[in-house]
Amino acid sequence: MSGNVLENGSVTSPAGFLAGSAMAGIKSLDRYDLTIVYSPTPASIAGVFTTNKVKAAPVLLSQANLAACGGKGHAIVLNSGCANACTGAQGMEDAAQTVQAVANALGFADTEALVASTGVIGAYLPMEKILAGVREAAGCMDAGGGTRAARAIMTTDTVAKEIAISVDVGGYSVTIGAMAKGSGMIHPDMATLLSVVSTDCAIAPAALQEALREACEATFNMVTVDGDTSTNDCLVALANGMAGNPVIQQATDLGYSAFVEGLIQVCSHMAQMIAKDGEGASKFIEVTVEGAKTCKDARLAARAVTGSSLVKAAVYGKDANWGRILCAMGYSGADFDPSMVDLYMGSIQMMDQGKALLFDEEKALAYLENDEIRILAKLHQGQERAVAWGCDLTHEYVTINGSYRT
Amino acid sequence: MSGNVLENGSVTSPAGFLAGSAMAGIKSLDRYDLTIVYSPTPASIAGVFTTNKVKAAPVLLSQANLAACGGKGHAIVLNSGCANACTGAQGMEDAAQTVQAVANALGFADTEALVASTGVIGAYLPMEKILAGVREAAGCMDAGGGTRAARAIMTTDTVAKEIAISVDVGGYSVTIGAMAKGSGMIHPDMATLLSVVSTDCAIAPAALQEALREACEATFNMVTVDGDTSTNDCLVALANGMAGNPVIQQATDLGYSAFVEGLIQVCSHMAQMIAKDGEGASKFIEVTVEGAKTCKDARLAARAVTGSSLVKAAVYGKDANWGRILCAMGYSGADFDPSMVDLYMGSIQMMDQGKALLFDEEKALAYLENDEIRILAKLHQGQERAVAWGCDLTHEYVTINGSYRT
Repeated sequence: MSGNVLENGSVTSPAGFLAGSAMAGIKSLDRYDLTIVYSPTPASIAGVFTTNKVKAAPVLLSQANLAACGGKGHAIVLNSGCANACTGAQGMEDAAQTVQAVANALGFADTEALVASTGVIGAYLPMEKILAGVREAAGCMDAGGGTRAARAIMTTDTVAKEIAISVDVGGYSVTIGAMAKGSGMIHPDMATLLSVVSTDCAIAPAALQEALREACEATFNMVTVDGDTSTNDCLVALANGMAGNPVIQQATDLGYSAFVEGLIQVCSHMAQMIAKDGEGASKFIEVTVEGAKTCKDARLAARAVTGSSLVKAAVYGKDANWGRILCAMGYSGADFDPSMVDLYMGSIQMMDQGKALLFDEEKALAYLENDEIRILAKLHQGQERAVAWGCDLTHEYVTINGSYRT
Repeated sequence: MSGNVLENGSVTSPAGFLAGSAMAGIKSLDRYDLTIVYSPTPASIAGVFTTNKVKAAPVLLSQANLAACGGKGHAIVLNSGCANACTGAQGMEDAAQTVQAVANALGFADTEALVASTGVIGAYLPMEKILAGVREAAGCMDAGGGTRAARAIMTTDTVAKEIAISVDVGGYSVTIGAMAKGSGMIHPDMATLLSVVSTDCAIAPAALQEALREACEATFNMVTVDGDTSTNDCLVALANGMAGNPVIQQATDLGYSAFVEGLIQVCSHMAQMIAKDGEGASKFIEVTVEGAKTCKDARLAARAVTGSSLVKAAVYGKDANWGRILCAMGYSGADFDPSMVDLYMGSIQMMDQGKALLFDEEKALAYLENDEIRILAKLHQGQERAVAWGCDLTHEYVTINGSYRT
């Protein structure tokens, strides 16, 4: 049972959420590059952050605020054009000033907002522009501002990524909205991205944190574009309770499962949009691993295939080089018996019980003409299953990343 | 103190080694694609093989023979054009037949030869051609056949990779020769490759195995081209004792250290040649990590940088995007404090104690015009050091791997 996808849904679709954006001129002058997502009603707040040892200042500050705010907050401010990473004490000061400006403008405590940045590493935030941008964004808070917010956080993304769904949570209609950015430096764990989830569901901070982590593992952590885990990864959820459902306190409460399912639906959509918009990507790749002994094995195997440069280049070249798929599963760390594996591209079986099949190359080539390539591996080791998403490796990827700063 | 590099050195430079090659016509008709490296004198034999769960038939057979032969053997037969991987029971039978043909032709037991294959995965060996090739190669054994052997194992390699050095081992002049192939599917552990080391050093099988593993970790395991660990990796050493030195029985024996040092010199040369010849590579990248707490930390950090698609693409694009270098070390799993890191490209310092430095972009661009790019990170956490090698990510890599089978 999946939630109902809302038309033109965005991060401001759930009741009580506003967003305001500004053209702060951080990197270029003619685009929205700073945005604030805001719930005037205090919201339960949760976050999942990069596992990179090198954490950008906004990540460190958001983690500190999350620890200090008692699980309740109001807003997140995001900017593109500058990651504020590798910027030392100055970077921390800049992130703190940004949050302070948001809190002052909207009237709540400094610790009740989080901050996220994306863009080039090692540059300092242009604070005059940032502070003017915060004032401008805070001055145009709008319940219809979600889509502009999703645009403001784009970097090399070619499409804005957003969705909203309504789900039945214990008899109450709950709305979950989300936006995300990300198309390079995308790799578990977690997928390199900024993403904000808003919901009017009533859910306690600890339960929200648990739900967010669960959803993240099944979705954002299953997408890879280039194998690089960034310094700025950040997935934040705000839940303001305006749907009026009895507050979900813990995982065993009525409605928790339905909420997590909705959250997974939203995050899965975002994750797939990110893979489809992978830097330079011409094809979307979905890898399903079935019959694994454990969920971890299934995830490891699926992610290794989407992460393999050789598989990615082969898909780009429409080369049904399935040996590379098995090879990638082999070095993934997943536990399986290679002599038991069945392998499919689309409906074409290429391997049966670990042995190569003679298949129709013409048919395989025709399948590889599609924009979306689905790979299925059946391990016959158990009952667990995982899906991972990625994209092909193209000439365009090399072009984009050979000249990102210039 | 390093060994003396011999002019035109090859795998047949050490005393008592022969090689014979054949145009077996496995994939194309007009090139050498099968070779046998042979010591008529029984040699201590050792091997390091792929850690991929999916092991090609030749790897499985070589491991079995190595276990069965009591550490002594005579030869290794290698072919390009077909990896004999994912070929099930038929593949094992084909590998066994190949070795048997070599043993019959040269007159020793079936278990006294190893076999290695490289090329496309999932295709069966054309056994008629292979057996004819074995007969031809066995019929033209030659002490000057080393260079032809190095050519016979090339796939997408653009240059043959070989070297020989002489080293002083406890007062005896010992020669160590090597050949290697590999330019795609190169990633620790271990670097995807076939490599054969021959030496006239007298060394017991267990000590040879230990020396080989030690050398492999510092060299072949520190090179990456594309992050894919293949199904066919294989590094084999044959030591026939013809240098006349007292047999090295264990690591504490006189001469062991000198021998390992020589082995590392030879393997390091091969590893660097592989990185320089990386598929589509236009630049060689050497990453040195100094001041790590442990050797493992140093190696993890150095390898993550050479393995980062974003770093590789930036070097290709002559973009001094040092943030990506720090980012890669951050997700490497190495233990270090980002706020202590100094970072250099060539002699240009880009980061001091974790903070971005303003550097001369013109000078950086000029440096990035070089064919060999050296990156240095000082972690200031301890005394350990590691060097890793790789290459840039280019449009040509994508072209090569988008159409490997066709």
